[in-house]
Amino acid sequence: MRALSPQQLINGQWTSSGTEVFSALNPATHNPLPESFFEATEAELNSAVAVAGEAFEILQEYGYSERAALLDCIADKLVAHQAVIVQRAMQETGLPEGRLNGEMGRTCHQLRMFASVLRAGDWLHLTLDSALPERQPPRPDIRLMPVPLGPVAVFGASNFPLAFSTAGGDTASALAAGCPVIVKGHPAHPGTAALVAEVIAEALAESEMPAGCFALLQGRSPALSQKLVAHPGIKAVGFTGSLKVGRILFDIACQRPEPIPFYGELGSSNPVFLLSHALGLRGEAIAQDFVASLTLGCGQFCTNPGLLIAVKGEALEQLKAQLQELIPAQPWQTMLTPAIAANYEQQLASLKLQQGVEVLAEARPGHPDQSHGHACILRTSARDWLANPHLEEEIFGPCSLLVECDSHKQMLQVARRLNGHLTATLQGETADQQEAQPLVRILMNRVGRLLYNGYPTGVEVCHGMQHGGPYPAATDSRSTSVGANAIQRFVRPVCLQNLPDGLLPVALKASNPLNTSRTVDGQLKVTD
Amino acid sequence: MRALSPQQLINGQWTSSGTEVFSALNPATHNPLPESFFEATEAELNSAVAVAGEAFEILQEYGYSERAALLDCIADKLVAHQAVIVQRAMQETGLPEGRLNGEMGRTCHQLRMFASVLRAGDWLHLTLDSALPERQPPRPDIRLMPVPLGPVAVFGASNFPLAFSTAGGDTASALAAGCPVIVKGHPAHPGTAALVAEVIAEALAESEMPAGCFALLQGRSPALSQKLVAHPGIKAVGFTGSLKVGRILFDIACQRPEPIPFYGELGSSNPVFLLSHALGLRGEAIAQDFVASLTLGCGQFCTNPGLLIAVKGEALEQLKAQLQELIPAQPWQTMLTPAIAANYEQQLASLKLQQGVEVLAEARPGHPDQSHGHACILRTSARDWLANPHLEEEIFGPCSLLVECDSHKQMLQVARRLNGHLTATLQGETADQQEAQPLVRILMNRVGRLLYNGYPTGVEVCHGMQHGGPYPAATDSRSTSVGANAIQRFVRPVCLQNLPDGLLPVALKASNPLNTSRTVDGQLKVTD
Repeated sequence: MRALSPQQLINGQWTSSGTEVFSALNPATHNPLPESFFEATEAELNSAVAVAGEAFEILQEYGYSERAALLDCIADKLVAHQAVIVQRAMQETGLPEGRLNGEMGRTCHQLRMFASVLRAGDWLHLTLDSALPERQPPRPDIRLMPVPLGPVAVFGASNFPLAFSTAGGDTASALAAGCPVIVKGHPAHPGTAALVAEVIAEALAESEMPAGCFALLQGRSPALSQKLVAHPGIKAVGFTGSLKVGRILFDIACQRPEPIPFYGELGSSNPVFLLSHALGLRGEAIAQDFVASLTLGCGQFCTNPGLLIAVKGEALEQLKAQLQELIPAQPWQTMLTPAIAANYEQQLASLKLQQGVEVLAEARPGHPDQSHGHACILRTSARDWLANPHLEEEIFGPCSLLVECDSHKQMLQVARRLNGHLTATLQGETADQQEAQPLVRILMNRVGRLLYNGYPTGVEVCHGMQHGGPYPAATDSRSTSVGANAIQRFVRPVCLQNLPDGLLPVALKASNPLNTSRTVDGQLKVTD
Repeated sequence: MRALSPQQLINGQWTSSGTEVFSALNPATHNPLPESFFEATEAELNSAVAVAGEAFEILQEYGYSERAALLDCIADKLVAHQAVIVQRAMQETGLPEGRLNGEMGRTCHQLRMFASVLRAGDWLHLTLDSALPERQPPRPDIRLMPVPLGPVAVFGASNFPLAFSTAGGDTASALAAGCPVIVKGHPAHPGTAALVAEVIAEALAESEMPAGCFALLQGRSPALSQKLVAHPGIKAVGFTGSLKVGRILFDIACQRPEPIPFYGELGSSNPVFLLSHALGLRGEAIAQDFVASLTLGCGQFCTNPGLLIAVKGEALEQLKAQLQELIPAQPWQTMLTPAIAANYEQQLASLKLQQGVEVLAEARPGHPDQSHGHACILRTSARDWLANPHLEEEIFGPCSLLVECDSHKQMLQVARRLNGHLTATLQGETADQQEAQPLVRILMNRVGRLLYNGYPTGVEVCHGMQHGGPYPAATDSRSTSVGANAIQRFVRPVCLQNLPDGLLPVALKASNPLNTSRTVDGQLKVTD
């Protein structure tokens, strides 16, 4: 593997024409890292999009199995260079080695999962309606399959330098769908991005696929991000980040002369409801597991549990006492960037000032180092919570708000007042099921994932996962950025009417050459 | 059936609090029809949305089979009242009885198709990943199913008073998905809307389902439409109409504090490519069939063939001569509204003035009656067409532009320059397949449906149909308003993690009570 490049990767070449540079910072030490990265210019952006458009047409001449092989090849190469990449990511994010090795495992798993999805073929949802020449009017032969949307812009996430950045879930699903990808690297970890981009370029070369299928643009300027989303050659966007930035880019995507899908995964406060028997029987375990979920990765997950909802009583008082023991013992952790740490402190300070909100437990506040974050649990009454919509908003970091309800009925009121969230969680026992039933109904209309007796952090990458929830948790609740269905974001269906077999794409030919499932005249048929 | 009501239908009651009224016009006679319809007020809009929100929660307690029975019941009642409804639609649209009876058949077919989709269950795409308690970390039990989005606003279409209006495809698919529907009736056919709305209200009552599941708001005011799309209680919109109005409403949907999906079917000019052997062998039949498709319904279909593309030569000269014989013999037809007729005349006049465009054949121009439209075919060179993007725009009416190419290579250039269209069509023979191959590849990236040896008008309602194409043909090319997949527009996936069987919705319970297909651990499994 060649040394880390400070330039842009365009059409398989590292290049730079700009003069502005920026450096990454080691958040654990506050020291800038030595390399100076070039800020991408508008000309470089245009060039990357132009070659992606050319690569898009060529890429469609490759089969699904060739795309699958590319994804496997990227995963193989990431594993081969794992040590170097993880070392760099540690320097740029302050995340521990174990976590980054785990994230690399997840990244490779995602790439290989999409490869297996491509090979299995069910994702195509092929649908055939036979011609009925005798009917009046005659029914034509109708065949339906997905086609890729075109070049996709992917924004690297601050909190997943591997699994939701350069070769992360969005890149993997877009390439799987047949779309070239232009990654805008997150400015907090440009070196990690450069190393991973080099891996992808090598995999494209080795697979003899167009180099224009992947580009990396580096930069800190919001204008670069905005121009990328506005570029007429970009046909969809994958974004993981804040509601504020996500909404700005979403608005640009919608206001283009040709609007495009914008898949923004924006986060939420992920309410956890404690039902009475669970709270009574295992409050101590709940307190421990909750704090573990809250402080994992210094709370820097979009599924972090930022709301805890329970009915007042003796059991809740015991839980509060346990939280008051556990939280002060939580160590300060390095946050991803000084800006994230400062923002966390500021939002936490603002939350403390809200009517009816008080601190329940806090880990040694006032740590002198501005790059670190500390755990905090606050409390309020359901009445105050219901009166103040700000108390539902996500705070990115290890803090959570306990909402104390007077009754189960009031808990249902709280549930009904929720806006969109990525997740909601119930802690319950068998004896709680009657209380749980209405909550399940209410919450299914407000979240993307509903958990029972688990905690929302640690999102499984599998076929049935759903990551996005109703706005403001995500900009498009009909899609997911995690799991096998993420590939569906980057395709659209095309209907082929009466095409002769010789002109049909291989997936739709009469002999079913891909040997995949098809819905024929309304009947779903699976092959052996 | 009770007499036509001039009021709004809200929560099963005909009601009106407003003072503004409007009448429908018989476009064939230019006479206003006697009834005065009340323009819906903002209070009525708010009331309809509020009861729809309540109905939404109740509707989710009904099973899929009960929703299916409702759709069948609506279809049965439409058939029972077909004569009255069709008579009224004739007066309000000028469309002939045969066409409207056919459209009623299509409307009922759509309702029954969604009923059968609900009963079959494959549309749910149920996905289950088994728990792996031994794995480190353990994998939870993950189950995925769709849930409805919430109350849906549907805009009646001018050109389909039945099949894309009050009980049309959007209403049928939204109700099938479990979403209450608020129809904004098209002001050109308020009486038809009122009669059909009464049928739906009766079907809801007979099915003992909440009356709030359906509302009809009448009005001509753009502000009413805009307020409906902007209302926070509306969670998705189905629209069929012009690019201009569709884009205004799309922008409102995107700019809301909570953006919502806006499914706008906006139309296109639907290019038809003539390949050389087809043109040489059966130019006469092509001329006849093309003119029949062009003039069907006075060209008032979003799939009307507004572009005809062929390579210059003897065969094309013969085709042009045939068009010059056929077109002048086409009768004038009543258009849907005087505004549509005036707009058609104006756009046609503007097209005639474009650089390099000339009239090839025209049916007696200058008809004195401003409600009628006449067929016209114009011609231009590919060179002039490539230089002027306006020549690709849809004109809603029976006119088409012949684009004469110097070569097959130039025809490919024209194809590459196309923006999004609902359809493209190839006329070809076996000997044309080599010429057709690159066109198929290019056009699949630019349309929602590609036809071979057919004509784009007459859209089949079946499982594999795709109606929407890339923008500006539709606002969301990932979805369709025609065919079984239209139900997918109004749902989003929800993941249930580790829920005990007692809390799982029936579709996801271990015993598979719906006996429907499921993907289990990545394997698609079909039941008998």
